[in-house]
Amino acid sequence: MSERAVFLHDIPLERARERFDEALLKAGVCNGATETLALDDALDRVTARPVIARLSSPHYHACAMDGIAVVAARTAGALETAPLELAPHEAPVVDTGDPLPDGFDAVIPIERVEPRANGYVAIRAAAAPFEHVRAIGEDVVASDVVVPAMRRLGAADLAACAAAGVASVEVVRKPRVAVITTGDELVDVTAEAPPPGAILDSNAVLLRACVRTYGGDVALALRVRDEEEALAGAVRAALAASDVVVVNAGSSAGRDDYTARIFARFGEVLVHGVAIRPGHPLVLAVARPATASQKAVPLLGIPGYPVSAAICADLFLRPLLERLGRRDSPEARELDVELARKLYSPLGEDEYVRAVAARVAGRLVATPLRRGAGVITSLSRANVLLTIPRFTEGARAGTRVTARALRPLAQIERTLLAVGSHDVALDLLAGRLAADDIDLVSAHVGSIAGLVALRERAAHLAGTHVLDPQTGTYNDAAVRRYGPREPVALVRFARREQGLLVAPGNPLGVRSLADVARTHARYVNRQPDAGTRILLDALLARAGIAPEAIAGYERIEFSHLAVGQLVANGSADAGLAIRAAAHAFGLEFVSVAWEPYDLALPAAALEEPRIARVIELLHEPALRAEIEALGGYDCAGAGEVRVVAPEAAAAR
Amino acid sequence: MSERAVFLHDIPLERARERFDEALLKAGVCNGATETLALDDALDRVTARPVIARLSSPHYHACAMDGIAVVAARTAGALETAPLELAPHEAPVVDTGDPLPDGFDAVIPIERVEPRANGYVAIRAAAAPFEHVRAIGEDVVASDVVVPAMRRLGAADLAACAAAGVASVEVVRKPRVAVITTGDELVDVTAEAPPPGAILDSNAVLLRACVRTYGGDVALALRVRDEEEALAGAVRAALAASDVVVVNAGSSAGRDDYTARIFARFGEVLVHGVAIRPGHPLVLAVARPATASQKAVPLLGIPGYPVSAAICADLFLRPLLERLGRRDSPEARELDVELARKLYSPLGEDEYVRAVAARVAGRLVATPLRRGAGVITSLSRANVLLTIPRFTEGARAGTRVTARALRPLAQIERTLLAVGSHDVALDLLAGRLAADDIDLVSAHVGSIAGLVALRERAAHLAGTHVLDPQTGTYNDAAVRRYGPREPVALVRFARREQGLLVAPGNPLGVRSLADVARTHARYVNRQPDAGTRILLDALLARAGIAPEAIAGYERIEFSHLAVGQLVANGSADAGLAIRAAAHAFGLEFVSVAWEPYDLALPAAALEEPRIARVIELLHEPALRAEIEALGGYDCAGAGEVRVVAPEAAAAR
Repeated sequence: MSERAVFLHDIPLERARERFDEALLKAGVCNGATETLALDDALDRVTARPVIARLSSPHYHACAMDGIAVVAARTAGALETAPLELAPHEAPVVDTGDPLPDGFDAVIPIERVEPRANGYVAIRAAAAPFEHVRAIGEDVVASDVVVPAMRRLGAADLAACAAAGVASVEVVRKPRVAVITTGDELVDVTAEAPPPGAILDSNAVLLRACVRTYGGDVALALRVRDEEEALAGAVRAALAASDVVVVNAGSSAGRDDYTARIFARFGEVLVHGVAIRPGHPLVLAVARPATASQKAVPLLGIPGYPVSAAICADLFLRPLLERLGRRDSPEARELDVELARKLYSPLGEDEYVRAVAARVAGRLVATPLRRGAGVITSLSRANVLLTIPRFTEGARAGTRVTARALRPLAQIERTLLAVGSHDVALDLLAGRLAADDIDLVSAHVGSIAGLVALRERAAHLAGTHVLDPQTGTYNDAAVRRYGPREPVALVRFARREQGLLVAPGNPLGVRSLADVARTHARYVNRQPDAGTRILLDALLARAGIAPEAIAGYERIEFSHLAVGQLVANGSADAGLAIRAAAHAFGLEFVSVAWEPYDLALPAAALEEPRIARVIELLHEPALRAEIEALGGYDCAGAGEVRVVAPEAAAAR
Repeated sequence: MSERAVFLHDIPLERARERFDEALLKAGVCNGATETLALDDALDRVTARPVIARLSSPHYHACAMDGIAVVAARTAGALETAPLELAPHEAPVVDTGDPLPDGFDAVIPIERVEPRANGYVAIRAAAAPFEHVRAIGEDVVASDVVVPAMRRLGAADLAACAAAGVASVEVVRKPRVAVITTGDELVDVTAEAPPPGAILDSNAVLLRACVRTYGGDVALALRVRDEEEALAGAVRAALAASDVVVVNAGSSAGRDDYTARIFARFGEVLVHGVAIRPGHPLVLAVARPATASQKAVPLLGIPGYPVSAAICADLFLRPLLERLGRRDSPEARELDVELARKLYSPLGEDEYVRAVAARVAGRLVATPLRRGAGVITSLSRANVLLTIPRFTEGARAGTRVTARALRPLAQIERTLLAVGSHDVALDLLAGRLAADDIDLVSAHVGSIAGLVALRERAAHLAGTHVLDPQTGTYNDAAVRRYGPREPVALVRFARREQGLLVAPGNPLGVRSLADVARTHARYVNRQPDAGTRILLDALLARAGIAPEAIAGYERIEFSHLAVGQLVANGSADAGLAIRAAAHAFGLEFVSVAWEPYDLALPAAALEEPRIARVIELLHEPALRAEIEALGGYDCAGAGEVRVVAPEAAAAR
């Protein structure tokens, strides 16, 4: 009773679902609305009531063969050895689909009819009544049920309706959903150049697409300022126009309280906070009918961080809309995957972790992606969602965990996983491979971590550019030290130019790393195991510059482009990266070195068709030209393969 | 070479596919066309090229908490025991999402900040650089690839595009398909009262819906007469406007030759006839480009019988459109099912058999439906498609065969299978059960066959009305004789009125079965094991009338409605059926008997929730009223359960 009036904080997922479902049932929330559609518009819609045949099919006795119509009783006695002659009026010629002439009850196929003089014919076998006749109603009898209620209409169902003379069907109206996004900082996604502080309203795009994916119709899409009366007004308008109201609560702290307060004005708040991560600040409520003729409407307050929003929509909005739209959920596609690396998880919450899964050496291995609730690209890039139940403290590498497929299983199975150093050109290769149904997915962890993943059979390929400072050569030493204990193939991808990215016009006049130290330029570095970082350290050692002399040596980014972005933005003065990154941001580029970027893989995998296709593509002039057009790439030698044997056991 | 010029007849399925695929590859058939769509319109479409981020996300350093901005270096030394005071200009207040003020590099959450006098604040811990800051490009870096090429866009993908400042995307254009149906006899499905000989063009509805299901666009829909030049003209027009041309060849013998001849005018015919059943007269061809700027276009001649058309579309049109549209096939959902009854199959052909599958006593059992290639309702009613490979002579009852699911697996699992006597009221019950996610599917085989199916655990329920002529009682004796060897529950469904259906005005003045014999009325009977047939035989015996005295005693139909249809149509004068059938066709009804119609099921299943729901619904006044409104039903006692114990073993 009074428990209902209290806002519940961070209750477990199942409890939140139960409370919401119970309240919806009690309030009688349902979708009784229907609409009548022509067959061509009714594909994939759900019948509201049984479809009753208006006509029989066939609606007349139809000849099922080309031949002659006969009276079966008249043909008795015809034998192979004793042909029976029929007069023209006893054997009218018919074609398939013709109505059986009145007074006749069977058809004899033309190939069993022998012509005689004067239009007479002979037959050598008797016909049974209704032989080669499609009788009235063979398929459908008028007034029979052609398609039951609550059936999702496929092509065969529509054809059955058509055959029964039913040209339009009454279907369940799609649940109408209002999507309200809130926040003073929101601007439309079409905004050309949003000022700092403005946020593109990508959640509106997300939630509208979710509504359609779940079988709903976006009846209303509003964006309102952070102002209590504005939101209350929007909710009031939404209640009048829709069956479900979704408010995207913004990501500021306390915004969910604000949403809950406004929901409480219109009805009962049932859930406020769910113990799932990401997703926490979810608000679920049911609005009271304003008048007797209106109905109760579910209200969902979805959190503002994009990944939280996507996960809450999937957990709460999907089942609601599928129930209102009378649609089945897509088949759950659950997978057993092996964790590629250790995963920590908070104890009291169910956690959803985005990951990339691929089949490597027979096992389905999942590499978790970054977890920030704001990183929507991680959800787009992931092909599985791992669930770490609450009361587990995470999981060790190698543990088998349950994952939900976010892509078709076949696509996951054909995923080619590249883990290692990031390169923009890899994305161009990925686009070409996609045309051959090969999904190249890359996780950016740096060269060394990539080789380690290769050794642990957690990836197919590792993008590698590691300088051996002692020999001045690239990759061989690192492969022997960190890579698999078996022959490793190094496939040349390209030679890349590395250099210092500086602002246009090179305001500090940086010509070398020595200049970076001298001018106290704010430097942005790469993470410790990145190949570019190893190059920097070698260049600093060769020039006799101490790392401490570089301002910002400790400030790290994880990709070439992130370094470029910071220099472009003015928050750093210099950083070492490939020329393509300078090109992408219109920066000046001070060349420092050319280095090979290779793809490492077990030599045994060279025969694998997908790998063979990668190598084939690297020889293609069109792809090479595309890569070289990025600037700072030299594709001479691309696709060349060299095998590095492991060190003799004694040498270790 | 010259082999290509020859029409191949009835080649195996795989060979037909290979020939077609090879020819398409050789002719360079592909879909290079793209279109640019706003995000809201791009859901489920496939990217034609990688989506490149226009903006970074965040596109500025964003505060990730409500609190104060600080310079991290300035906070060094703050300790729990030694709070550090900051002046107002050193600690500007910020909200989540705000841009980090210039010159600051970290945020301290408000709950860790202690207010002091004059706007000063104190902190008790140092901040690390970029702590609680979402750095520029944390999610997406401008110029990075947000979504790869050839990706089917889901909600998260669209949100990622939006976050990266990309408001429209270039997607693969849906393959444009022309659908041509041919036949002088065809009329549009909206025709009110098609004359005998006219056929509703339901195949056009079927094929248009197939095209959309497979991801294509219907660019052109034409219906042409059986005239060579008319069809040639239609194909010519279709070639100019579409990427694929489908001709529905009509069902008359030789129509496929006609289609093949016209296809040969435009290009090369590759396949003419495939050894599959139903489906045989399929024609596959590739049209030569008419001019250098045009492209080669696949031509498909699809057979005219509706089930053949549906199966050929699935086997040949689906993979073609999915390839051109760059879409994955839906996951194949294969099932292992146990055959409920013996199935014969021709030796040389792959056969596709429509069936109804349900889980009974733990096993998934499939009951094959009628096989006529014209019976499109069987495809709509089936929930699985059995494949009987060629070179097998069919399969015995109890054999495990492979089936493809035509409905979601969950729906198949919850199917409640009623096998037995047909009753229109069952369809009303089915509609009510569907609202509770219970799929009641019925196969009409007559009362006795239904009880046998129940005994063989091939059905959940058997609709039964069998008179024991010796005792004059209904159902108990038949259940003991044919039903399961365990206690059987008989659930009263209704009492039904049986009577003679005669034309309006009762032209022959039939008042009894004696009158049927006396007037030589053309009678239409039911199949031997139908309850109505047993009633007839008992009534005839009681009245001392010999079956031979009834004209048409041997002419059988399989349902009440089919009997009504024949009387309504004038092809029979009388038939025994329930009053509802008379009502449906506006016939006169001569009452003969009231009989109970029961649902038989193993008594052990009474506790099963779906069965409990059936019984609950039968008590509902609303459903009873709906059933009684059909006429000839009395629902008093509906839902009452009575258990019939098996006979003692000695008694058998």
